[in-house]
Amino acid sequence: MIDYPAARAVAMVAQTGSFEAAAKALAVTPSAISQRIKQLEDRLGVVLIARGTPCTATRKGAALCRHIEQVGLLEKELAAELPALELNQDRVTLSVATNADSLATWFLKAVAPFGEKSDVLFNIALDDQEHTADWLARGRVVAAVTSFKNPVPGCRVIPLGKLRYHATASPAFVKRYFAKGVTAKTLSEAPGLIFNQKDRLQHRWIRQVLGRAVAFPAHWLPATQSFVDAALLGMGWGMNPALLIREHLATRRLVELAPGAVLDVPLYWQVSRVAADRLSALTQNVVTTARKELLA
Amino acid sequence: MIDYPAARAVAMVAQTGSFEAAAKALAVTPSAISQRIKQLEDRLGVVLIARGTPCTATRKGAALCRHIEQVGLLEKELAAELPALELNQDRVTLSVATNADSLATWFLKAVAPFGEKSDVLFNIALDDQEHTADWLARGRVVAAVTSFKNPVPGCRVIPLGKLRYHATASPAFVKRYFAKGVTAKTLSEAPGLIFNQKDRLQHRWIRQVLGRAVAFPAHWLPATQSFVDAALLGMGWGMNPALLIREHLATRRLVELAPGAVLDVPLYWQVSRVAADRLSALTQNVVTTARKELLA
Repeated sequence: MIDYPAARAVAMVAQTGSFEAAAKALAVTPSAISQRIKQLEDRLGVVLIARGTPCTATRKGAALCRHIEQVGLLEKELAAELPALELNQDRVTLSVATNADSLATWFLKAVAPFGEKSDVLFNIALDDQEHTADWLARGRVVAAVTSFKNPVPGCRVIPLGKLRYHATASPAFVKRYFAKGVTAKTLSEAPGLIFNQKDRLQHRWIRQVLGRAVAFPAHWLPATQSFVDAALLGMGWGMNPALLIREHLATRRLVELAPGAVLDVPLYWQVSRVAADRLSALTQNVVTTARKELLA
Repeated sequence: MIDYPAARAVAMVAQTGSFEAAAKALAVTPSAISQRIKQLEDRLGVVLIARGTPCTATRKGAALCRHIEQVGLLEKELAAELPALELNQDRVTLSVATNADSLATWFLKAVAPFGEKSDVLFNIALDDQEHTADWLARGRVVAAVTSFKNPVPGCRVIPLGKLRYHATASPAFVKRYFAKGVTAKTLSEAPGLIFNQKDRLQHRWIRQVLGRAVAFPAHWLPATQSFVDAALLGMGWGMNPALLIREHLATRRLVELAPGAVLDVPLYWQVSRVAADRLSALTQNVVTTARKELLA
């Protein structure tokens, strides 16, 4: 049998990033945390926590963290049958990954009611939709919103619908830079917005519209709402989710660079097969919400 | 004299994260980029780019990137005197760091007009206000919004004012968890929100209100606007910037856990002394905007 207090200590250090913070969260001393983890590591003959600032779970440590989450869910089910166990003191934390634009538009609506009903806590990791599947593959999360439709090994895939993007900017910006239309020349002079190094949406849109790549000057801005704000302020143009800018488009505070030239990104819910049964209520919430908010 | 085409290649690889993307941005082949950087590294006898996914600047590489930014600003000034130089084709990118809550509330208003007037592009890095100063110290940015009032070596410091936070949640959440007030017991049962491992604001507020630390169950959620959304949806309570939730407080869609118990975080603009003169217009925008939006 696994040493569960030690395993919980590993999970809490991975989440909080330090022995001190984990100790506070579990209401024990940092040296107790350190001792438990050390003993478990010695017994298993593997390193579970990479000590550093912050401390992180190793690959083997991450597998243990996911195991702890799943055992927690099983305990919750058992406690419903056997309330006398009084197991419910410890709340379960579920690690899930999503793209920032889903988080900013529809994802919280799906997870909030689940958390409320079931006492589950969420540890939400953000990454580009083309990279959230890696979090699943590396065992860092039990489920992910991703643009990958092929199942990550050991996972189930459910299509969620398409997140629609409009290439948008302020009317003044469009007048200044795109009075002659969207061409390779005008694009090469107008500052665009790029979320981070993984963000290819602007490049994909250009390729879709012009049929080829065009380099463009860019501001780098890693926050979904700030993308919208920067467009409103006339700093640059960027791919903004339709769900977030509906009102700005209606009031023409934002306008499309090329009206009607949208970019649709299909999204999928991938969930670890081992955890899928435990997570069926969450999956149902995610699918129902996504199908209401996203395009078919 | 530094080999400037090679130095620009280094800066672009550091920004885009890959030789391919840098090549596209500079309209040359990836092998040209690779060759230029390799030659410069050989000549200097140091590694400037850590090859990986993504590629990143080494400490020495970062110093070169900041130099390129500053030379770019100098060239802009010179071109104003000598328009015949026609240097203005290459736009300058300035790397600055800010906390996410400043970006979401007032920072873009300060940088947007500067970018518009001067053709400068921004590469905005996000980190906790207690950590943005590290970006300056490591030479990754030329200026930062930070909570550190002591100057980073080689930097000037200008106080900006205080960003005010309210501990807030939905009325239903407060009724459910805090009907008996904010105590160690009620806090230990109500789910809070934590931005990431560096976020200590919730813990600081508890210590300020109760005089001691209390562990609390938490959702982890690394996005400013999602913090507000999660509070609105009743997922948890969290420290939200007053500037972002003014209307929600007025309409009572969000309420304070302990009315009047605010947390004020003083912020400072730290700017590299070498670049300070070049950046005086940006600094002026930042200071003027901050003093209008933040508390004195």
